[in-house]
Parts: sequence; C-alpha cells; structure tokens
Amino acid sequence: MIPFNLNKSMELLERTPTVIEHLLAGLSDEWTMNNEGGETFSPYDVVGHLVHGETTDWIARTKKILSENDKDFAVFDRFAMYEESKGKSLQILLTEFKEVRKKNLDFIRSLNVTEDMLDKKGIHPKFGEVTLRQLLSTWTVHDLGHIGQIVRVMAKQYKENVGPWVEYLRILKD
Amino acid sequence: MIPFNLNKSMELLERTPTVIEHLLAGLSDEWTMNNEGGETFSPYDVVGHLVHGETTDWIARTKKILSENDKDFAVFDRFAMYEESKGKSLQILLTEFKEVRKKNLDFIRSLNVTEDMLDKKGIHPKFGEVTLRQLLSTWTVHDLGHIGQIVRVMAKQYKENVGPWVEYLRILKD
Repeated sequence: MIPFNLNKSMELLERTPTVIEHLLAGLSDEWTMNNEGGETFSPYDVVGHLVHGETTDWIARTKKILSENDKDFAVFDRFAMYEESKGKSLQILLTEFKEVRKKNLDFIRSLNVTEDMLDKKGIHPKFGEVTLRQLLSTWTVHDLGHIGQIVRVMAKQYKENVGPWVEYLRILKD
Repeated sequence: MIPFNLNKSMELLERTPTVIEHLLAGLSDEWTMNNEGGETFSPYDVVGHLVHGETTDWIARTKKILSENDKDFAVFDRFAMYEESKGKSLQILLTEFKEVRKKNLDFIRSLNVTEDMLDKKGIHPKFGEVTLRQLLSTWTVHDLGHIGQIVRVMAKQYKENVGPWVEYLRILKD
C-alpha cells in the first residue's frame, strides 16, 4: 500500500506514453489490431481510448472538482475512440497520446495541488461524490490497467501455441 | 489467434527489456519493491526472475530439444532470484536482462530455425513431451505475463486510494 502522493502518481503518469510506445511501435498488425473477441479492445483501440481520456475526461473532471459551481462530471464514453481514431495510424495515436499527456501533466503541475484541493469533491454520474485524490489515483491505476490489458490481449493471440504450459501462464486465464 | 511465427515472437522478445526498463527505471522503491503480499513477486523480483530464466532456462531447454540425446529439461527454480539478485540494484538487473536477452536472441537467430526443428521435442519434468514451437511460444507469452504482473503489482499499491472507482478497475481484482 502506498498512500496517495502526487509526485508518486506523476512518476507513473509521465512514463506511460513512452512505455506504450516501446511496447507497440513497429509491431505487426496481428499483435496490435486483434482483440479478445466481441466488443473488447485491441491494443490499437486502447491507445485511442487513452487519447480520448486525456482530451475529454481527466482534466475536465479535475477542473469541475476545483470549480465553485458546476461540479457534475460528464459521462465518459468508453467507446468514443472507435469514431475518433478512424483513419489514424497507431503511430499517430501514440504521438497524440504523448503530446496531450505532457500538456495535461504540465497543467496539473501548474495547479500547485495542496492537501485541501485533494479533498475537494465533484459529482460522478454513477458514484456521486468523489475527491480529487480519488480521481488522480484512478488516473494512475487506469494507465497501469491498460498496459496490463495490452499485454493480455497480445498474449491471448498466442494461447493455442503454448501447449501444456497454458497451465502456468496466468495471463492466458485473466 | 496468431499461428506461431518466429519473427513475430522475436518482435516481442527483443523489446521486452526496453519496455520494462522504461516502466521501472528511476521509480520510487515503493513502486518497485512492494509485492502483492505473502510469497508474491515485487517488480524487482520479476526482473531477477526474468534474468534467471535467460541464464538457466529458455536457451538450455532449446539446446536439449535440438540435441540428439539428453532431452530431459532441468527443473526451473522460480525462486532462485531471491538468492541471485542479492545486493544487486534494480538498474543492474535491468542492464543484465537487456544484455543476456540480446545474446540469447542472437543465439536463436544463429540456429536458422526450420519448421522441422520447431517440431522437435524435449521432455519437461512435469508435462512430458513438448516441442520447440511450444517452448518459444511460452517464452513470448511469459514475457507478456510478467509485464502484466509488474503493472498489476504496482496498481495494487494504490488500491485503497481510488474510492468507488475500484469497481471499474479490473486490474485491482485480477
């Protein structure tokens, strides 16, 4: 357990675009464009989803929490990137993610966030009152979750090839 | 589903050390040295485990499969790194992993692996006969699994901080 700490969150948030770029740039489409079946995300979809979060969600919600009125968060569209990513290559999305993340973290730094600010609240459409501390923690874990999703989706493309080792490879069961 | 293809495996195997370096280098110890409780691995332990696999497992087993006699694999010690990593910093382990992985992939390339070679078999201590194709597929998925483990272990350090969002963050439940 790590108590929330903005610097410790920033350590992760600022490296995610580079990590995902090293994970995906230049890979064959079979790795990046396949998903886990049905309406699940491919690694390409995940990057589009991350870009959409940067442009519509995390900072917009931070501003709502810190504003004196209009505390109600907009609903986040988890599937918006199917439209927004159209015609964009993976490399373009990776570059967009890096740029918009940097801009967003610069904005967060410019706020000089205090403990009092971290306790401020906004209204989530489903959960009701949530604090800035919870939002920034969620942003951090959300990054890690999607890196985990990318590697899981890629691993599953190879599921039929590992023979009896499937038993030891937890990622193929998650 | 992707049928086994050595080039497609190599695309992933050769990038894993760089991905993990970008994920972990320079992070606070709270992120890299904590685990999921009990006998689970910290991110630091994972890197030591990956180094141990490079030096004792994947290539040794490849050689057994391709040899004409002595097809029996040694048992892999999943906890050997607790001894072997002692006194080594995370940065040293990351560098070791990068170097030994490069050497191992150079060796694999030098074999000029054919379809016939991929069908050859060795004897796993638990599973019995396994093919080179299955071993090389497992090596690939094993990398992805441990990247997934690293991000899951780090995400869980923040589990108490996300409030109601825990419901949406599958990585905290895996």
